[in-house]
Amino acid sequence: MNTVEIIRKKRDKEKLTRDEISFLIKSVTKNKIPNYQFSAFLMAGYLNGFDKDETAALTFEMLHSGKVLDLSQIIGIKVDKHSTGGVGDKTSLIIAPIAAAAGVVVPMISGRGLGHTGGTLDKLESIPGFRTDLNIQRFKTVLQKHGVSLIGQTKEIAPADKIIYALRDVTATVESIPFITGSIMSKKLAEGTDALVFDVKTGNGAFMQTLKRSRELALSLNNTAKSFNKKVITFITDMNQPLGNFVGNWFEVYESIKILQGENVHDLLELSLNLSGAMIFMGGKADSLDEGIEKSKELIKSGKAFDIFVKLVKAHGGDVAFIKNPEAYPKSKFSNDIIAEETGFLSEVDTYRVGVCASELGAGRLTMEDKIDPKAGIVVHKKIGDNVNKGDKVASIFTDRKNKINEISTKLCNAFKITSKKVKRNKLIYEIIE
Amino acid sequence: MNTVEIIRKKRDKEKLTRDEISFLIKSVTKNKIPNYQFSAFLMAGYLNGFDKDETAALTFEMLHSGKVLDLSQIIGIKVDKHSTGGVGDKTSLIIAPIAAAAGVVVPMISGRGLGHTGGTLDKLESIPGFRTDLNIQRFKTVLQKHGVSLIGQTKEIAPADKIIYALRDVTATVESIPFITGSIMSKKLAEGTDALVFDVKTGNGAFMQTLKRSRELALSLNNTAKSFNKKVITFITDMNQPLGNFVGNWFEVYESIKILQGENVHDLLELSLNLSGAMIFMGGKADSLDEGIEKSKELIKSGKAFDIFVKLVKAHGGDVAFIKNPEAYPKSKFSNDIIAEETGFLSEVDTYRVGVCASELGAGRLTMEDKIDPKAGIVVHKKIGDNVNKGDKVASIFTDRKNKINEISTKLCNAFKITSKKVKRNKLIYEIIE
Repeated sequence: MNTVEIIRKKRDKEKLTRDEISFLIKSVTKNKIPNYQFSAFLMAGYLNGFDKDETAALTFEMLHSGKVLDLSQIIGIKVDKHSTGGVGDKTSLIIAPIAAAAGVVVPMISGRGLGHTGGTLDKLESIPGFRTDLNIQRFKTVLQKHGVSLIGQTKEIAPADKIIYALRDVTATVESIPFITGSIMSKKLAEGTDALVFDVKTGNGAFMQTLKRSRELALSLNNTAKSFNKKVITFITDMNQPLGNFVGNWFEVYESIKILQGENVHDLLELSLNLSGAMIFMGGKADSLDEGIEKSKELIKSGKAFDIFVKLVKAHGGDVAFIKNPEAYPKSKFSNDIIAEETGFLSEVDTYRVGVCASELGAGRLTMEDKIDPKAGIVVHKKIGDNVNKGDKVASIFTDRKNKINEISTKLCNAFKITSKKVKRNKLIYEIIE
Repeated sequence: MNTVEIIRKKRDKEKLTRDEISFLIKSVTKNKIPNYQFSAFLMAGYLNGFDKDETAALTFEMLHSGKVLDLSQIIGIKVDKHSTGGVGDKTSLIIAPIAAAAGVVVPMISGRGLGHTGGTLDKLESIPGFRTDLNIQRFKTVLQKHGVSLIGQTKEIAPADKIIYALRDVTATVESIPFITGSIMSKKLAEGTDALVFDVKTGNGAFMQTLKRSRELALSLNNTAKSFNKKVITFITDMNQPLGNFVGNWFEVYESIKILQGENVHDLLELSLNLSGAMIFMGGKADSLDEGIEKSKELIKSGKAFDIFVKLVKAHGGDVAFIKNPEAYPKSKFSNDIIAEETGFLSEVDTYRVGVCASELGAGRLTMEDKIDPKAGIVVHKKIGDNVNKGDKVASIFTDRKNKINEISTKLCNAFKITSKKVKRNKLIYEIIE
């Protein structure tokens, strides 16, 4: 095969064959073609796109660049959920135990936070002792026993994705829907799951900021899942404000515990019930999404979901003392409140800025080497549409970094917009694509 | 400056600043950014283009990546010609002496042939002893004395072009008009010339096969020359058949001698007179292109142009015996004629194929390391529109490679199309852009 000729075809908007895509992905992964050829291909692909078949072929090659887990010995339908990431998005911690409690098998391989978004692994690791680096055998054992296990990506899974992502990152080709699809799907398919629930976030705190782009990604994920014969439901949901009220690693575990214990945090509970409902439906434990939602409610109410969460933490080596008594968790040394300077309604939140502030307080990392402070974060007291009186707390920050308090307080203050006119609440779920 | 941000801007069709272009070209030339970033930029530039200002900035940076000759001590207006290359295009050998004979200073820095096209340096080196590697001092001395000197590109001239071309070649981004412009112009401007004549070839033997693309390149060259305050005339001329009748290195010197001695090879003479006429006009030795053409005719008739050619060869160390008696040049060991199998009119020539055949006979090279046989080549006996009788010689091949004769004869035979209907002669000059 001629690399230049394949690049030329994509440059000229021609459709590539499976073999051509296979050749390129294999070659770049095994370092058999120079990166400068692959990056020209990336830019041609970014600008000229890939169709359904090409995207499936990209995904297939990235998937098979590494190991695919064999979960066939574990009885039951395996269902996983993937979110494209946002601020305060802790639904994985809530819905995985709910779905497992319903009898669905939930093999979750998650990522870490980078930039303004958090990662499920970091959140779980805020629980003292919690190990996300179980080996595959132990992962399977936990999965078998409790119906759910959550680990990090191993080196054996989709190594092509890591190589290609590193190149995309430095060549301004990250925001390519087919490559995003390939990256997400190759890792999810490697888990050996039977069905997938996608939560594509849209809005000013999401990777995809417009509904149009979010819909493109949602359709691409849906189509690709189907081409691999996986059942799939994709939600497009709002990320124009943090999800729930808590942002920060332990804060998000804390809020998840509250939800699992039956507390009602409006948007977070509603989305969690939808996602777990979809997992239960696809896992064959309900006949419809609505029935899945009803089952989810019951599993919270009965305490069964929380029970699974406690078992999951224990199985991963975590200290359940803080799960049973979350108020006992260590507190940040410093805190400060963001106070409303006028009366009116919360109309807008710069969600990206909230995420960046949380990160700078210690909750996140700018590079993969940075250490995380599990206690640090932000509590948001108001949601869009809420009535705000002058002097009300809009948000509170928590950190050990004394020197950051003033800077972040000012920065965060500017993230909230209050208007005198009444404001409608945000729509939470824009679309459900089956 | 942020490399990824510059790539992103071009990816999103934004205009780059001079500083951004300067930063990228300097960085890639000095190996300060990785090639994979520059190749993503190349593809973004290929697909989204560059405007006039950006192209001028690209050219400026490529030019100033190396030395610019200072010819200010040589009296007279310096004018050079550049052709985008074709089959049988030997006009440089003819027009340089004509223009010099008219009192124009002609500092020509030329290239070698690669693929299906020949190069001026290879043609000159078919003259025994002819040196194209004069150092700059000697180049200036010959230029001062005879008004013309022809040398090859030195390492000091536009090194950025070499680096960027090598990357374009392996990333399917060669055919980008702004980069072609930058590549041609940076080398031509480095000669220290005052004015430029461009001959942009169009047709099935040219780099630009359609008139539309040729016109784009012509306008880009013209605009860029003007932005560097150089006088410029650009011709768009036909390359749907070889220029003149001879293809091959010595063959082309031979035909040039014939033209300079007053022989009329219709298309070759007409184009040469136009190009030398333009050089004379721009060099201030004629008041119009037409007057330049008339002067050119006189300088051939008087023998003054041929006289300069002989002096040029001598000054470069060449053996003038063969110039004065070209029939004495060594002949190829083998030859074969391509015979017309039907009566009619020559209607089409696959010029690219003729070029490739000549190359395979020994006249060209597939890689820069291949050796050239100066005697090898093709004589084309018929031009498009000529009447052909069954049994007429259409072309003849000359080579030392006995094993190639049958293969090339068949291949070449298929390059000529004869129809029964009368055919119009090809237009030679499509456009003259001032």
